[in-house]
Amino acid sequence: MPHPDRLFPADPETRAIARELYAAVGGLPIVSPHGHTDPSWYAENTPFPDPATLFVIPDHYVHRMLHSHGIPLEALGVPRLDGGPVETDKRKIWRILAENFHLFRGTPSSMWLTHAFFHVFGIEERLTAASADRIFDKIAADLAKPEFRPRELFERFNIEVIATTESPLDDLRRHRKIRESGWKGRVVTAFRPDPVVDPAFPGFAGNVDELGRLTGRDTGRWDGYLAALADRRRYFIEVGGCTSTDHGHPTAQTADLSGEDAEALFRRVRRGEATAGDAELFRAQMLTEMAKMSTVDGLVLQIHPGSRRDHNAPLYAAFGKDKGCDIPGPTGYVDELKPLLNRFGNHRDLTIIVFTLDETAYARELAPLAGHYPALKLGPAWWFHDSPEGMRRYREQVTETAGFYNTVGFNDDTRAFLSIPARHDVARRIDCGFLARLVAEHRLERDEAHEVAYDLTYRLAKEAYRL
Amino acid sequence: MPHPDRLFPADPETRAIARELYAAVGGLPIVSPHGHTDPSWYAENTPFPDPATLFVIPDHYVHRMLHSHGIPLEALGVPRLDGGPVETDKRKIWRILAENFHLFRGTPSSMWLTHAFFHVFGIEERLTAASADRIFDKIAADLAKPEFRPRELFERFNIEVIATTESPLDDLRRHRKIRESGWKGRVVTAFRPDPVVDPAFPGFAGNVDELGRLTGRDTGRWDGYLAALADRRRYFIEVGGCTSTDHGHPTAQTADLSGEDAEALFRRVRRGEATAGDAELFRAQMLTEMAKMSTVDGLVLQIHPGSRRDHNAPLYAAFGKDKGCDIPGPTGYVDELKPLLNRFGNHRDLTIIVFTLDETAYARELAPLAGHYPALKLGPAWWFHDSPEGMRRYREQVTETAGFYNTVGFNDDTRAFLSIPARHDVARRIDCGFLARLVAEHRLERDEAHEVAYDLTYRLAKEAYRL
Amino acid sequence: MPHPDRLFPADPETRAIARELYAAVGGLPIVSPHGHTDPSWYAENTPFPDPATLFVIPDHYVHRMLHSHGIPLEALGVPRLDGGPVETDKRKIWRILAENFHLFRGTPSSMWLTHAFFHVFGIEERLTAASADRIFDKIAADLAKPEFRPRELFERFNIEVIATTESPLDDLRRHRKIRESGWKGRVVTAFRPDPVVDPAFPGFAGNVDELGRLTGRDTGRWDGYLAALADRRRYFIEVGGCTSTDHGHPTAQTADLSGEDAEALFRRVRRGEATAGDAELFRAQMLTEMAKMSTVDGLVLQIHPGSRRDHNAPLYAAFGKDKGCDIPGPTGYVDELKPLLNRFGNHRDLTIIVFTLDETAYARELAPLAGHYPALKLGPAWWFHDSPEGMRRYREQVTETAGFYNTVGFNDDTRAFLSIPARHDVARRIDCGFLARLVAEHRLERDEAHEVAYDLTYRLAKEAYRL
Repeated sequence: MPHPDRLFPADPETRAIARELYAAVGGLPIVSPHGHTDPSWYAENTPFPDPATLFVIPDHYVHRMLHSHGIPLEALGVPRLDGGPVETDKRKIWRILAENFHLFRGTPSSMWLTHAFFHVFGIEERLTAASADRIFDKIAADLAKPEFRPRELFERFNIEVIATTESPLDDLRRHRKIRESGWKGRVVTAFRPDPVVDPAFPGFAGNVDELGRLTGRDTGRWDGYLAALADRRRYFIEVGGCTSTDHGHPTAQTADLSGEDAEALFRRVRRGEATAGDAELFRAQMLTEMAKMSTVDGLVLQIHPGSRRDHNAPLYAAFGKDKGCDIPGPTGYVDELKPLLNRFGNHRDLTIIVFTLDETAYARELAPLAGHYPALKLGPAWWFHDSPEGMRRYREQVTETAGFYNTVGFNDDTRAFLSIPARHDVARRIDCGFLARLVAEHRLERDEAHEVAYDLTYRLAKEAYRL
Repeated sequence: MPHPDRLFPADPETRAIARELYAAVGGLPIVSPHGHTDPSWYAENTPFPDPATLFVIPDHYVHRMLHSHGIPLEALGVPRLDGGPVETDKRKIWRILAENFHLFRGTPSSMWLTHAFFHVFGIEERLTAASADRIFDKIAADLAKPEFRPRELFERFNIEVIATTESPLDDLRRHRKIRESGWKGRVVTAFRPDPVVDPAFPGFAGNVDELGRLTGRDTGRWDGYLAALADRRRYFIEVGGCTSTDHGHPTAQTADLSGEDAEALFRRVRRGEATAGDAELFRAQMLTEMAKMSTVDGLVLQIHPGSRRDHNAPLYAAFGKDKGCDIPGPTGYVDELKPLLNRFGNHRDLTIIVFTLDETAYARELAPLAGHYPALKLGPAWWFHDSPEGMRRYREQVTETAGFYNTVGFNDDTRAFLSIPARHDVARRIDCGFLARLVAEHRLERDEAHEVAYDLTYRLAKEAYRL
Repeated sequence: MPHPDRLFPADPETRAIARELYAAVGGLPIVSPHGHTDPSWYAENTPFPDPATLFVIPDHYVHRMLHSHGIPLEALGVPRLDGGPVETDKRKIWRILAENFHLFRGTPSSMWLTHAFFHVFGIEERLTAASADRIFDKIAADLAKPEFRPRELFERFNIEVIATTESPLDDLRRHRKIRESGWKGRVVTAFRPDPVVDPAFPGFAGNVDELGRLTGRDTGRWDGYLAALADRRRYFIEVGGCTSTDHGHPTAQTADLSGEDAEALFRRVRRGEATAGDAELFRAQMLTEMAKMSTVDGLVLQIHPGSRRDHNAPLYAAFGKDKGCDIPGPTGYVDELKPLLNRFGNHRDLTIIVFTLDETAYARELAPLAGHYPALKLGPAWWFHDSPEGMRRYREQVTETAGFYNTVGFNDDTRAFLSIPARHDVARRIDCGFLARLVAEHRLERDEAHEVAYDLTYRLAKEAYRL
């Protein structure tokens, strides 16, 4: 059961200040501008099926840790691409998590799960082999109740607004259904064009053809292709309440080619003749094109590079993507973002939010860049760094050069709906603890810390994402 | 108003030790062996004109943060290269700083400014829109008084010696004037040959010609060029009290070419035929040549690589250099310094001081190198890292491998005269706090900590820089 | 004299928890699965000769720090390769250490030496110029006593098992002698094949010939070469109790060539025609071959890349290797380990332990890799990072993504026998302090922390190394 003082620094004076700050912001509404929950949940409001389907089968943090200790994904019920047999007994799957829950000690997964068990289901005991069945039964029983359906939880979690992520080829019917349902919960989409701007994306050529069909544009031509993207952005804004785009490129490379060079590159790409270098350059150029469109339609541009996707080839072949085998690598920003920033970085009305999986860039490149360019803001500690130590390092390494106000508050980046309150709570506690240390070390006055705590918890995310 | 315990760790026992250590070193004279203040100030002793000219217009930390929030440099009175209109109302400029002072929360700028407001001008209230005019008037009134002139502040700041930085083409007339004035303040120059050793420096060819004219050497020839540099070093020593050279190269690359290869490279460079690779190699070779000269004339060699200068091309085009758009990037040392260190690194009478903007090199490369080579010492946390967290990381990551005695104390590296006491005070407090933690964790005895605190504050800088 | 609370966090509540955890694990037997002590010590049980020979002459941490302050290695009695004169007066050598002992303030060397002085020899006073002779005499007198011989110290240190490191060309006669002596101390060997798998290793060709002679295999052929290696591995297991192999490559590069390509590469290597690229590729391939053999014979594979060996060419020429001039550099893992991990990383019965000298890889690459691949575990903070701050950073940066149970406890990696208890004690204290902070911040329950402390101190090393 989570302790009321958890994550606050142990020093009594600092802890007292952290408590005071947290008391004021711990209960603020959740603004979740970047995440990957399934809009069907809110559209259909079907009950979540069972504890294993909710907490184990889709969670790549859980996959990876259990896999690292030799537990096959089949035993966790993760579907194989070849349709081969996997465990279907949900209680058995749950027991595996329970028996191995000690492996998660010191990890955020442990904290997120424990938080959800307690705050959503009122479970106070620890998950172990002994308690596994009791906890399974309790959660299963609760999930069958109306107040545990997605919309009801959304309201109980005090979510003010949440963004999902869709491909430009998505028709947003689920978002449309949410709007038409009369439900008051605010769910918006985010525009993630990787399938149609990354030549290395599986099915790229077909995707771009489909983009043409959807918009009635000739996506065989550079101008038609750009116009089609602009169309879909408009559609996302109008139908899905979209305020941001999201780009998960391997690197942060940007480019600012002449119109002719861009067009020639596009033709090679469309003919399927793109080399790896061409693909990288095309992605790079497309970030700048997206920024250009953002100066027109106001969408916030998010860049989160650096993941080596699907590192484990045998696992990828068996189970497909997002199974916990994306591994970060060194990621540069200073040279990579220069073409984009030299073109649009001084725009006052453009917002570009950059994330990193390579913490060495925080103090060396990202804070100096964000502390200088008006268009650039830093996304929060992200993915593997969405954790107490990760968040602390972020504030310690970013604040002195970028300040607080070139950062954008917290976002949860999750597809695990029930972990959302836990994740935001961790961020609030860590930020309050960090601010408390500044106050205790007389680097910030107490009233300033209160204002900053509010901003980091609530205001900055809303403003940066124009929500 | 700065708190007497500021920057000390919050834990009461550790804080008490930090206080005790600081009590002994907080008031020691300031040794400032590396900085960029204007020698005219000490030569002319003209009053500083007004608060905005003193604190806003020349401070690139202030530019960058305000620019990052969309405030044009024109509004801050920063002169445009094209002579276009910029704000001239100093009070208006000051108000912009005041209204936006919350943006600096958690940054060293906030600490430095607040320290100067209080310790130099006795201002206790916070800078806000409401207090802007009062504070402006108070500072403006004080600046008109004789005791706020540069020499008087120099003495009040208890500066024992300060180094400025001059190009080899400078005639040092301001330094001569200081010496001839009979004023007792010790101001020395540092030899910064970038304009004549970096082929990419604007005006390089003309600069080398001018170097020839100044020395009567034939700088069209390799031997004449080297002799001219040696001459100017001697001149800087004799006329400017110079004890060090300072090299701001893009990378830490050094080279140890044969005489023939060096001469051939020099000829390409002088004919204006240098490729980017040639320019890099020439800078690399010149570091080794400078080290060689140092073994003769005793000047301390400082290398501070890693800044990508003028990253923001549009801003650079409008306002020129040093406007807050220099961004660090990854910087290697282990391979880069090898040619120089293999040639001169084992010299016992040579001192090479290396700085970094890439903190990842502290524990990985710099501490191991400095903990081994007799000639090599580590400069303090620098530029963006000249901050509480930056200084803490420096000590935490460097000390265990290099010890304290392969570091050179603190230097402020600033052109902001009134921030000098604040910067040294931050360093003293952070070092005392770090030492206090070692004492509290029983990793250092209290008497040892006192000795180290004195050394870090005063002795090491004097000895390393031969002042 | 070491304080009972040393290295525990200063905060009283956290310290109390750390004390409690340490009380339970501080006295556990030492498991030392990776180190470089001389098996002759245990085979011969000859007394250690004198304080300088024990603590100064062979310790590269001591060399490097004293050398960095201009003390020639000759003055420390380090033998020159050319047999030139070096200091032979052991007391004089000792005095140099004593007079310069302040240089080691804040470094682990200071802690290790002080720990050994007190815990082995009962010396309470600090080593200084004034105490040098007294301490020399005390240690010299003790070393002459039977209870200070290697086997007696081994038992007194409560070493349950220690691994040494031998070349495949070693006949393990010393290990044989230990076994045949009837002494109960457990000393095992580790298989370090660098001399026969690294084409850049001095004497490589002759070494591979010798490998053929030893095994009766034709090491001129790829299959014979592999069989010979498998033979020696078996010999090491049978005669030396070997459970692990150890690979000190410049990089972490691995390869998974086809049999034909591997054989062709081997032929180039054997003909002495290997380019630098070939040598790197051959080392890379051999890691994968070693992993393949490990799936058969069960040896744990250790990889510790990243050191730029013998950086100081003049010193290397005079004194040879391991004299404190190995400097780390940037080291990648994510792309480098991929070929090996894609081939064998999902094996449940294989253990690969990776170390790093580049801490930037902890959170970015190593924790994500170890937190995913069943075969991969992380070695502890190592070499320059085998220190209080280094170990803290390790836990802080690794735990949240890899958990505790993808790490392998501590190993000392030392050739300095008397420092072994000190090194393990530092690790135990730092781990207890880290766990105490998690408990104090309510991120871990107290009973869990006790279990983890035991595991990190004792169980994980035994299990990971199959000891």
